[in-house]
Amino acid sequence: MSSQSFSLRRLLLGDPLASSQLIHEKISKVKALAVFSSDALSSVAYATEEILFVLAAASTAALSFSIPIALAIAGLLITVGFSYYQTIHAYPKGGGVYIVAKDNLGTGFSLVAGSALLIDYTLTVAVSVSAGVAAITSWLPGLISYRAILAVLAVAFVTWMNLRGLRESASFFAVPTYLFIAGMLSLLAFGFFRWLTLGGLPDVEVIEPIHADLAVSGVGAFLILRAFSAGCTALTGIEAISDGVPAFKAPEADNAGKTLLVMITLLTSMFLGLTFLAHEVGAAPSHAETVLSQIGRSLFGNGPLYIGVQIATALILLLAANTAFSDFPRLSYFMARDGYMPRQMGNIGDRLVFSNGITLLGVLASVLILIFNGDTHSLLPLYAVGVFISFTLSQFGMVRRWFRLRSHGWQRNAAINSLGGTATFVVLMIILTTRFLAGAWIVLVLIGFFTLTLLRIHRHYEGVAENLSLDNYGAPTRLRHPRVVMPIGGVHRGVIKALEFARSLSPDVTAVYVETSPEEGEKLRQRWDRWGDGVRLQVLKSPYRSIVGPLIQYLDKLGEERQPGDVITIVLPQFVPEHWWENLLHNQTAWPLRLALLFRAGYIVIDVPYHLGETSMEELDS
Amino acid sequence: MSSQSFSLRRLLLGDPLASSQLIHEKISKVKALAVFSSDALSSVAYATEEILFVLAAASTAALSFSIPIALAIAGLLITVGFSYYQTIHAYPKGGGVYIVAKDNLGTGFSLVAGSALLIDYTLTVAVSVSAGVAAITSWLPGLISYRAILAVLAVAFVTWMNLRGLRESASFFAVPTYLFIAGMLSLLAFGFFRWLTLGGLPDVEVIEPIHADLAVSGVGAFLILRAFSAGCTALTGIEAISDGVPAFKAPEADNAGKTLLVMITLLTSMFLGLTFLAHEVGAAPSHAETVLSQIGRSLFGNGPLYIGVQIATALILLLAANTAFSDFPRLSYFMARDGYMPRQMGNIGDRLVFSNGITLLGVLASVLILIFNGDTHSLLPLYAVGVFISFTLSQFGMVRRWFRLRSHGWQRNAAINSLGGTATFVVLMIILTTRFLAGAWIVLVLIGFFTLTLLRIHRHYEGVAENLSLDNYGAPTRLRHPRVVMPIGGVHRGVIKALEFARSLSPDVTAVYVETSPEEGEKLRQRWDRWGDGVRLQVLKSPYRSIVGPLIQYLDKLGEERQPGDVITIVLPQFVPEHWWENLLHNQTAWPLRLALLFRAGYIVIDVPYHLGETSMEELDS
Repeated sequence: MSSQSFSLRRLLLGDPLASSQLIHEKISKVKALAVFSSDALSSVAYATEEILFVLAAASTAALSFSIPIALAIAGLLITVGFSYYQTIHAYPKGGGVYIVAKDNLGTGFSLVAGSALLIDYTLTVAVSVSAGVAAITSWLPGLISYRAILAVLAVAFVTWMNLRGLRESASFFAVPTYLFIAGMLSLLAFGFFRWLTLGGLPDVEVIEPIHADLAVSGVGAFLILRAFSAGCTALTGIEAISDGVPAFKAPEADNAGKTLLVMITLLTSMFLGLTFLAHEVGAAPSHAETVLSQIGRSLFGNGPLYIGVQIATALILLLAANTAFSDFPRLSYFMARDGYMPRQMGNIGDRLVFSNGITLLGVLASVLILIFNGDTHSLLPLYAVGVFISFTLSQFGMVRRWFRLRSHGWQRNAAINSLGGTATFVVLMIILTTRFLAGAWIVLVLIGFFTLTLLRIHRHYEGVAENLSLDNYGAPTRLRHPRVVMPIGGVHRGVIKALEFARSLSPDVTAVYVETSPEEGEKLRQRWDRWGDGVRLQVLKSPYRSIVGPLIQYLDKLGEERQPGDVITIVLPQFVPEHWWENLLHNQTAWPLRLALLFRAGYIVIDVPYHLGETSMEELDS
Repeated sequence: MSSQSFSLRRLLLGDPLASSQLIHEKISKVKALAVFSSDALSSVAYATEEILFVLAAASTAALSFSIPIALAIAGLLITVGFSYYQTIHAYPKGGGVYIVAKDNLGTGFSLVAGSALLIDYTLTVAVSVSAGVAAITSWLPGLISYRAILAVLAVAFVTWMNLRGLRESASFFAVPTYLFIAGMLSLLAFGFFRWLTLGGLPDVEVIEPIHADLAVSGVGAFLILRAFSAGCTALTGIEAISDGVPAFKAPEADNAGKTLLVMITLLTSMFLGLTFLAHEVGAAPSHAETVLSQIGRSLFGNGPLYIGVQIATALILLLAANTAFSDFPRLSYFMARDGYMPRQMGNIGDRLVFSNGITLLGVLASVLILIFNGDTHSLLPLYAVGVFISFTLSQFGMVRRWFRLRSHGWQRNAAINSLGGTATFVVLMIILTTRFLAGAWIVLVLIGFFTLTLLRIHRHYEGVAENLSLDNYGAPTRLRHPRVVMPIGGVHRGVIKALEFARSLSPDVTAVYVETSPEEGEKLRQRWDRWGDGVRLQVLKSPYRSIVGPLIQYLDKLGEERQPGDVITIVLPQFVPEHWWENLLHNQTAWPLRLALLFRAGYIVIDVPYHLGETSMEELDS
């Protein structure tokens, strides 16, 4: 609370911003693509690799299955993309799945969606930052043993920037996104050109390749489905534009829809192209280098072009993590507003951001990274489950909506959303079946647990509101003067000051002394006669030397005799020493008393501080 | 505070005892020897071994020096013994060094002595329990890797027994002490008998002997002195009888003096005899077995006699540790009474014991054991320093006393104490010189630090007493009704209840609301008009959304305008939810406010609890 801590805070976070400084920027399609697509586009940095990672467990020959699998995923991507195109036009104010589910499927499903999303956002941060670090360690292998700590530092940096209130400056976002798009498109163009002119590509030398798992015998349907679900991580983030429609320039829905189409086109072609190139250069998952880095290295060598691609990849992944830092606190705020999350999630900090949500996300993501040692392959099986649960709920929410509204062209719209919903539901089932033991079960358990917790929080707030409601509350009652009890351990200035205060509150004051030895008791009685100014003194005998026990018994007895409207007020003289450690030198009898009374209704405890420092003494006496 | 925790406490510690149940037992010489000599006599279990431990570092041949060194120590023992014989007659009410130094050498030396003693008592527990465990692991070598944990369990057991209020039942003490004496005397008698009849003793096979340290070249004066100081641990505990004179039957001093002479005789002959036998059977320090166990095994074999000696040794060492559990809390109580230790050390617990001192000693000793891994050899170099500091202070305190009182025969008495004091001072110097780096420096630093801390504690209590003194305090002032400020965040039952209470305290009540958004502010104003019962409402604008900042500014301004005798009273409505975790669901704005006001004089904070549970509601409404 000191001015010192305030200035440290200002140094780190900047000056507080007034509420009136909150503004909303409307952005063009070109900038919007940069703002909303970093999460989706950056997933090509790991999606192809995940497919190969599963296939490599069978044999090197199995890697060729990546091409048909990628084609299937591209089909899914286009289907889901069109489905979201519908949502954009139906919810021009932003159609996040929490809202769509709440409107169309009811509270239960909206909470499931909310839980899934909160887990997703946390995983987005952990996965994106880990993959970004992997892009750097592929280029600089010496850093590989520090990957977890580098990832945590990156999360800390993003958290800090967001706490400072990184304004969603679209231009700031545009640079790394378009750099990455440019890098990927050059890679693809150069790769295809060489493939066409050379009639093939030279094989890359894979460092520390992952060897086939002897437990996996041959390529069966299960393995193919498993590789397919691993590749479905390419779809993460494609819902972002539909959540952010209001940020577009008018006509919002139209512009957002067009941007979505561009994004889907870019994403599909980059994903397919990279998977094809990976196959042609013979890239294989390795402990030391990402597949994307292998492609870059085989085409560009180790020169500046390669390094540029790696850095652009790391930056867009950092940006993808950053988007979760706006989404997570915003969703928490919506849910807190509806009474399902702790109210503190709705607090707007000094810098006009939801500081609590930002901090919570930073901590959770760091913990995840440390648990999984910054390894993308371990984190990704957790990721897809939540994403596809929210996709499915979102699509079926839309279907319910079309059936409910029956607006113009509702049958066609419902059909498109049904197709999307069915596709994502089938994929969800595939993911759950093939990756259950790899981590999907953890996510299911967490979603269940969070949903129940959200409901419990809501029940608490409802109970409080009911308890506090002034409906049917009569006229305020006039309480009599409170009955004041002042436990004393001796007669000294602190006690006399407290007595003066007690008498200013009420004419009904009783001092209470717990006597542990008759001599001390007699001495106290004499001093009270001299200094107690006629106030009643009650002496309680304590044969077992406990101070608190007899006091509580006495107060309980008073409580039983209490008349309606009586409040028993306990005035406690309290030392405030100059140094905190000096508290250790005094019997802290007041604490157990305070604790015992906290859970009894009808008692109020007042600490009357007595400052032992000299300056404070003067102040009090002045 | 619940009845459950009380019954667990009763189960562990027994029913509380009334103050009237405190009785003091007067004991006979035979029982007194058992009560007061366990610490001194038990030191023969490690003193000889310590001498050999130092000598073994040079060579096996050097072990023969143990005989002359032991003779020198025996001489010292007798000198110091007679010196304490004087103390007994001079302080029939108990002449602990803290009291002797306070009476004769002044506060400074008494605090040094007190610090040294508190450290000694802690080391007594750690050393005795570790040596006791070593007696058991010599017999059962399989337990040796658990020695630290066994020692900590033993300390926990002794702590528990003392917290229950192990009455100093002399008969209880007599059994292990006399068993040990009988065991040692049988060992010596049998050993000498065989030595005389066989003309020598067969060599014992030493398991895992400690090998000569290559850094130590030959036997020089330094090594001999070092071995001598190691052996001086045989003197620990001989002051115990002089501390406990009042426990003897009348004539107290006479009986105590005679008991001391018997103890010195026993101790000297046991120490010399064991050192001689160790030499004759060729016992040598080992990692696995104590020297005492080697002697026993070589004379008695592995039969019941040997096992009996080991068990008796372990028991008397446990008893020695136990004596520190009466000495440490008693000394702490004396020092707390004089205002040099925290007052809590003077609290007498449920079971009529100084529970805080007992617990503190148990914790400190356990920490020491864990740091030194229950190894007697590492702990003993620390031990002797404090012991000889207090010996020296005690003897010279007595010399000062004789010169001051000049009572009958004072010259002779002063000469004896001077001899004792000089001898112990020389030994102290030897210990410090030869064992400085082995740990003596730690003890010196600790004694210095404790002494300064004790002085600082005293200064604090004196300052408090002066601050609280009612000398020159005028007549009690009549305070006006307090000025009551009630910060509110909304208008609900909890606030209305608090308002009712505030109005019962004073007619001068102001409700204060911090407005972060104009709409909310307007809503609140309307609700206050309806429910505020005419109480003044002050609205503070907060452009930066901070709640606490504007409130503190407002209160500071009120504080500046304050008239003499005004107390500004802040009434805070406080939720008390049914479950503790529900506190997490509410903004805890009250805490920073409370913290900020704690260090400002002239403000008093009152929490008016509002219980959210239904039962409590009824109680409050009744």
